[in-house]
Amino acid sequence: MAKISERGKILPASPIRKLTPLADKAKKNGIHVHHLNIGQPDLPTPEIALQKLKEIDRKTLEYSPSEGILSLRKKMVEYYQTLGVEISPDEIIITTGASEALLFGFMACMNPGDQMIVTEPAYANYHSFAQMADINVVPLISRIENGFALPDIEEFEKLITPKTKAILICNPNNPTGYTYTGEELCKIRDLVKKYNLFLFADEVYREFFYSNESHVSALTFNDIKENVIVCDSFSKRYSECGIRVGALISKNREVVQTVLKYCQARLSPPLLGQLVAEVSMDAPQSYLENVYNEYISRRNILIDGLNKIQGVFSPMPNGAFYTVTQLPIDDCDKFCAWMLSDFSYEGQTVMMAPASGFYSNPENGKKQVRIAYVLEKDELKRALTVLEKGLEEYKKTMM
Amino acid sequence: MAKISERGKILPASPIRKLTPLADKAKKNGIHVHHLNIGQPDLPTPEIALQKLKEIDRKTLEYSPSEGILSLRKKMVEYYQTLGVEISPDEIIITTGASEALLFGFMACMNPGDQMIVTEPAYANYHSFAQMADINVVPLISRIENGFALPDIEEFEKLITPKTKAILICNPNNPTGYTYTGEELCKIRDLVKKYNLFLFADEVYREFFYSNESHVSALTFNDIKENVIVCDSFSKRYSECGIRVGALISKNREVVQTVLKYCQARLSPPLLGQLVAEVSMDAPQSYLENVYNEYISRRNILIDGLNKIQGVFSPMPNGAFYTVTQLPIDDCDKFCAWMLSDFSYEGQTVMMAPASGFYSNPENGKKQVRIAYVLEKDELKRALTVLEKGLEEYKKTMM
Repeated sequence: MAKISERGKILPASPIRKLTPLADKAKKNGIHVHHLNIGQPDLPTPEIALQKLKEIDRKTLEYSPSEGILSLRKKMVEYYQTLGVEISPDEIIITTGASEALLFGFMACMNPGDQMIVTEPAYANYHSFAQMADINVVPLISRIENGFALPDIEEFEKLITPKTKAILICNPNNPTGYTYTGEELCKIRDLVKKYNLFLFADEVYREFFYSNESHVSALTFNDIKENVIVCDSFSKRYSECGIRVGALISKNREVVQTVLKYCQARLSPPLLGQLVAEVSMDAPQSYLENVYNEYISRRNILIDGLNKIQGVFSPMPNGAFYTVTQLPIDDCDKFCAWMLSDFSYEGQTVMMAPASGFYSNPENGKKQVRIAYVLEKDELKRALTVLEKGLEEYKKTMM
Repeated sequence: MAKISERGKILPASPIRKLTPLADKAKKNGIHVHHLNIGQPDLPTPEIALQKLKEIDRKTLEYSPSEGILSLRKKMVEYYQTLGVEISPDEIIITTGASEALLFGFMACMNPGDQMIVTEPAYANYHSFAQMADINVVPLISRIENGFALPDIEEFEKLITPKTKAILICNPNNPTGYTYTGEELCKIRDLVKKYNLFLFADEVYREFFYSNESHVSALTFNDIKENVIVCDSFSKRYSECGIRVGALISKNREVVQTVLKYCQARLSPPLLGQLVAEVSMDAPQSYLENVYNEYISRRNILIDGLNKIQGVFSPMPNGAFYTVTQLPIDDCDKFCAWMLSDFSYEGQTVMMAPASGFYSNPENGKKQVRIAYVLEKDELKRALTVLEKGLEEYKKTMM
């Protein structure tokens, strides 16, 4: 029997992989599991997008261009104009989700062994794509005590070596929900300029920005416009994660042309998803407003509820639909598993993502969990009660 | 301005990349271009699959499981049973086209620097995925004089080193249309067993097999069942390349579990494509029969026509919808460009894929082109006339 590769062995598994069978078992035992662990919005996809599926009038579901359908890219240009960003359709490449944009972007911009600085806690799959591209993630810890604000720029500078090729920021942030201030972004911009790095900006949660400031896209940094690579996606914005349509956007023509070569190898992004994505942008303004307002109410309920539980601390996140919360526990992996396997309250329990999976060194997240607010408000309140009861019970097991 | 990576620079571009602007220019000048260059079937997608789009009754287009929808995988199990292959749904992972199955399969089975033997001419993107996975393709030339039959097994053995981890076969073959005989496959099987290699079998053209023997899937090699990784796709079989649904199939649980980790990083294959793929398997038997018969007639017209042109030689391909043809020319890249930029006959010209792009050493394919028969019969006949006239004219330029 032929043996798998070493790199395959060390590829990190999904942080919640071990929990899924426990959740399945709990459900089998009749327990209702509140899923606070996932990044799948529960809100409906725009009606106009669902309607489009009924109107697709093609005889053959053909390959689309490797760079994506032109009319979709043109429509994205209009969308970016509303953000004050001037780009052209050939500065946009449609990818199979933002995932593919990250992987191909890393490969196009960095050689094996190159380094990329990423603030942590960070989306766990950055590590997976970095490993696929054989580059090294250099973590820089942001602190829950500071609400996960950007670490001092001097801390970034200390990490820069001749191998450093890029900084990655996720704004609004998954998993923390933190939104970078204009001042923080200027500091990052200046640093990128000083060392001539690439700046990967994951902006898939751009529309979910609850701060008083407005969201500043890295595409507006004209000083470093050829250093910026933005990853975008339709998944979260329109609750259509399943269509697998994202994009890589850059004003660096060489980067775009190189990413296009990677895209040509895989032939084409999903045709049907692109048709859906294009019409999604025609959803009425009220669609995004309703989604926005819904998330704000949920956030308020969640953060308020969390901070009322003894020993729990969550900063107020200003974006996305997550928060990373400090819990009075010894070990988040153990606690999240215990909640599924050993606990229930009135026939319910909660599933959360252990934050250990969001740090290069799991110790840094040992007492934290990520909670997503992709449940409707009443369920969210019930989940909070269950979590509170769970923490009380768990405390006894730690004694 | 930050600079792209070295690996990005050397990634091979699509073999026809340079020709596309020439074809566009010809079209602009009112010339009809017969596309013999592409692998996009022109035949219709099954009606039942198109109908399915109108019946999708979901409120949210959610992520599907990373390994693909269970009901689709179960249906594929039934399909494989009709081929005499017994597999279980958890031995199938749905991928975003066969492309992703190749990339993740390479990464899961080989470490950077490992070697994989591939017979050439070969699908050009194997090189791209190999480069992304940082493995080395070791080419073994199959000869047009032998109709691109499998090279002697001793030739394979000469190439095996301690770094050799896999052999890749494409059966039926793209670009040659060659179909491996049972005897050839047994030799490959024995070699794989002797050296405990992985066997990657790209079988996306399985249904297009015109030989008297029936197609033998590598999944039937019980002796080496834990060494076999099959890449499959719905794209060609049902003329639905745009849905981006393929699969990786293996009885090696460790490989499947490792590929699944790569799949979890990219979250999910396309949901809509999977829904379409699943119902496509319900297309009436007559659908595949008609497609099959159509391709056989086209093949006969094409190969017959090609061999009637002076100085042209094409073996009779027994599968897929391609042939690699020897032409009386000095340089296929030059000739294919010239046909688009300098030649037309009765307002028409033809676009072909230079075979140089299907060899590690382009010299080996310098006088060959790949011709796809994805045009209806009358257009195919006209294209043949145009090619004949073009060759006559081109001869004069070579003098």
